[in-house]
Amino acid sequence: MRIKTLLSLFICLLSYGLHAQNKDEQMIKKFYSEELAHGRCYGWLDTLCRGGHRLSGSVGAANAVKWGKEAMEKAGFDRVFLQECMVPHWVRGPKEKAEIIPSNGKSFEIPVAALGSSVGTGMGPITAEIIEVHSLDEVAKLGKKNIAGKIVFFARPMDPSKINTFEAYGGAVDQRSSGPVIAAKYGAIAIIIRSMNLTEDDYPHTGNTNYVDSIKKIPAAAISTKAATLLDQMLKTDSHIKCRLEMHCETLPDEKSYNVVGEIKGSEHPEEIILVGGHLDSWDLGDGAHDDGAGCVESMEAIRLFIALNIRPKRTIRAVLFMNEENGLRGGKKYAELAKANNEKTIMAIETDEGGFVPRGFSIGKDTSVYLKVLPWRKYFEPYHAAEFVKGGGGADISPLEKDNVPVMSLTPDNQRYFDFHHTPVDKLQAVNKRELEMGAATLGAMIYLLSTYGL
Amino acid sequence: MRIKTLLSLFICLLSYGLHAQNKDEQMIKKFYSEELAHGRCYGWLDTLCRGGHRLSGSVGAANAVKWGKEAMEKAGFDRVFLQECMVPHWVRGPKEKAEIIPSNGKSFEIPVAALGSSVGTGMGPITAEIIEVHSLDEVAKLGKKNIAGKIVFFARPMDPSKINTFEAYGGAVDQRSSGPVIAAKYGAIAIIIRSMNLTEDDYPHTGNTNYVDSIKKIPAAAISTKAATLLDQMLKTDSHIKCRLEMHCETLPDEKSYNVVGEIKGSEHPEEIILVGGHLDSWDLGDGAHDDGAGCVESMEAIRLFIALNIRPKRTIRAVLFMNEENGLRGGKKYAELAKANNEKTIMAIETDEGGFVPRGFSIGKDTSVYLKVLPWRKYFEPYHAAEFVKGGGGADISPLEKDNVPVMSLTPDNQRYFDFHHTPVDKLQAVNKRELEMGAATLGAMIYLLSTYGL
Repeated sequence: MRIKTLLSLFICLLSYGLHAQNKDEQMIKKFYSEELAHGRCYGWLDTLCRGGHRLSGSVGAANAVKWGKEAMEKAGFDRVFLQECMVPHWVRGPKEKAEIIPSNGKSFEIPVAALGSSVGTGMGPITAEIIEVHSLDEVAKLGKKNIAGKIVFFARPMDPSKINTFEAYGGAVDQRSSGPVIAAKYGAIAIIIRSMNLTEDDYPHTGNTNYVDSIKKIPAAAISTKAATLLDQMLKTDSHIKCRLEMHCETLPDEKSYNVVGEIKGSEHPEEIILVGGHLDSWDLGDGAHDDGAGCVESMEAIRLFIALNIRPKRTIRAVLFMNEENGLRGGKKYAELAKANNEKTIMAIETDEGGFVPRGFSIGKDTSVYLKVLPWRKYFEPYHAAEFVKGGGGADISPLEKDNVPVMSLTPDNQRYFDFHHTPVDKLQAVNKRELEMGAATLGAMIYLLSTYGL
Repeated sequence: MRIKTLLSLFICLLSYGLHAQNKDEQMIKKFYSEELAHGRCYGWLDTLCRGGHRLSGSVGAANAVKWGKEAMEKAGFDRVFLQECMVPHWVRGPKEKAEIIPSNGKSFEIPVAALGSSVGTGMGPITAEIIEVHSLDEVAKLGKKNIAGKIVFFARPMDPSKINTFEAYGGAVDQRSSGPVIAAKYGAIAIIIRSMNLTEDDYPHTGNTNYVDSIKKIPAAAISTKAATLLDQMLKTDSHIKCRLEMHCETLPDEKSYNVVGEIKGSEHPEEIILVGGHLDSWDLGDGAHDDGAGCVESMEAIRLFIALNIRPKRTIRAVLFMNEENGLRGGKKYAELAKANNEKTIMAIETDEGGFVPRGFSIGKDTSVYLKVLPWRKYFEPYHAAEFVKGGGGADISPLEKDNVPVMSLTPDNQRYFDFHHTPVDKLQAVNKRELEMGAATLGAMIYLLSTYGL
């Protein structure tokens, strides 16, 4: 081959490359423009939230399953189906109440919420002296003589100096998840925890707690951060403060429920699946707008955008609304089980479960080769301020898939406001900004476009 | 010099460089940690907003001047002083009302707000047929025969597909600023505009409008986006809809007011000044929490952090709360005039006037050499997700300084939510998130630390 021919070939390849890049840039712009001008996800979220909470096993969760299936069918997905799974059915019960009783007897009520999966206090309230601790270890150190018969108050706050609020959450949530077991081991009769929140406010934050079979199950509840700060202050001068706690929560028999799955078939590699999903269940205090209604409607919307833009993806793209992320992960486990049984080839699973806030980028899971493959696409997301690509990735719902070696990633929205709403009565539609949600959906659509075009 | 000596020197310089870098990283971390754990700016904003709006010439503005001075004095600034300036004094008056009267006579009221600087409608309402236009040019094209005697409805929406909402604003705001002049030129008796907002809601957005002396001053008002969309729909089938508009706003004689300036003296180059500021005045519908209470308290806080962290800057750092950005820029002009008269050497002026949202980075004004000097500092802001450094920069308050060749930059927060609140009754404390505001203050503090350490 002569130099001239080689040069021509080189120029030809280069111009092809630039052309592809320009084409991708233009296509991605379409995802954002379409979404910001004619997005449907906020309307979907409105409808979803009007149905109330969607705790696993609840009527709201069952209605949400129907809604999700119908919405995807109406939006023109190629195929929509349900995956049956049995889910835990915990109910908060008719009443929960916490009173603080100082030595002077001038008792007062504080905002409280039972932790998910907690047992109740029986027919009426239980009353005991409060002992404040700041870690699980401290309970062990204090031992039976200090803990037995008491209500343990786990008071360690989330660290506000952490920039990533999920890191601050991770540094405090062991009190919620493991508090009842360690406290019961040393004879406590209940626990209360400072809510997982960086803001001082009046909303108790629920969330799941865990028991082990060998240790007595004791009631566990969260109190608002303001109440926790006050209690901490009071305990500095009054070491005999009591708490009167009443909770009627209980765990009923498992219920039948479903994951909702909707897909568009790929034109060239229909057997290769790109999954995007959030979880349809929520806690029972608010409407689960950020957690994770936002993730559900963003996932549906990312795929609907292909229909709206008349783009047939090369690979199959699939939205999954997982059931029971909050207190069991039964939906995520069922999905992975069926994917394995059906010998499905999922080339990427994307989770969106960090709130409907403005996107910052993606967290891309453990396989370095996947991360390096995706990394050059950062440039496409720079105009949309969503170009922070970090290694990490995944999410609870897709963790069973990850165990089966499916590559994973997650959308990472800005998380400064997340814990103001997380698992509280104020996680409602009003807490979600329409444009921020739409930016999330478009960012997912753009990433799925690249994945479906180039594969992995 | 022998190779070995050269090598030693090189290693020495390199290790010094790395040491400086590490030290700067650590110092910047302190700004964020201190602010997120012990920040005061949200408390300041709370106090400021409790005083109500701060429109130039109002009692609220006068009180805010006192408050700003006292707050900086209490915080331990080296020197706090006022700069007197005369400001316009426009008042909304006791009543404003807009009614839509369709051909069928079934009239209804819509949310309306007079534009700043607008004249009123006289003793009572004015009523005229509405003519809808989408641009200033269209008014000229329609000409006197279609415009005379009518109320012109400027209906062009902000473009939702723009990622930068300020760009969308810039693409529509000529209707607000120049609408009355062009409409009056062709004989209109008033104008109403679609509010500058990307969201369909019920809040009219005020903002300044301009008259010219040679053309009759006609009343100008904004209607909510929902009302504008409805009116646009109705006009498609009913071309004889009237509007009854009543406004009692007026411009009173100029009032005396002040910029508030607080500073910490530099230890090595006290004559070199780094300025950070926002504007203390606001519109009169809400409390000016985002616009620009947030910028004021962030500026004060950025400098207070030096005191809290016991850091004496090498150069003088100065917070300026400018008066009258919204309808005259008298404070900004006065500041620049005095800076020139006093032969001050301002090495950088930083504006923060884009809302108290989570920071994305900085926009750095026109001098390329300044941009290139600052650009390597991006790396320090990456851990805080505030590393988007773009060329552009500045802001209204510091534009007179910029004309005098002072280098400028501005903090750029995420702007997706900004126009939901801008110039409306809902621009209140509740619209500002504490952590997002604190991230802004810490980011400013970190930038000022680098500027004061290394100069320009």
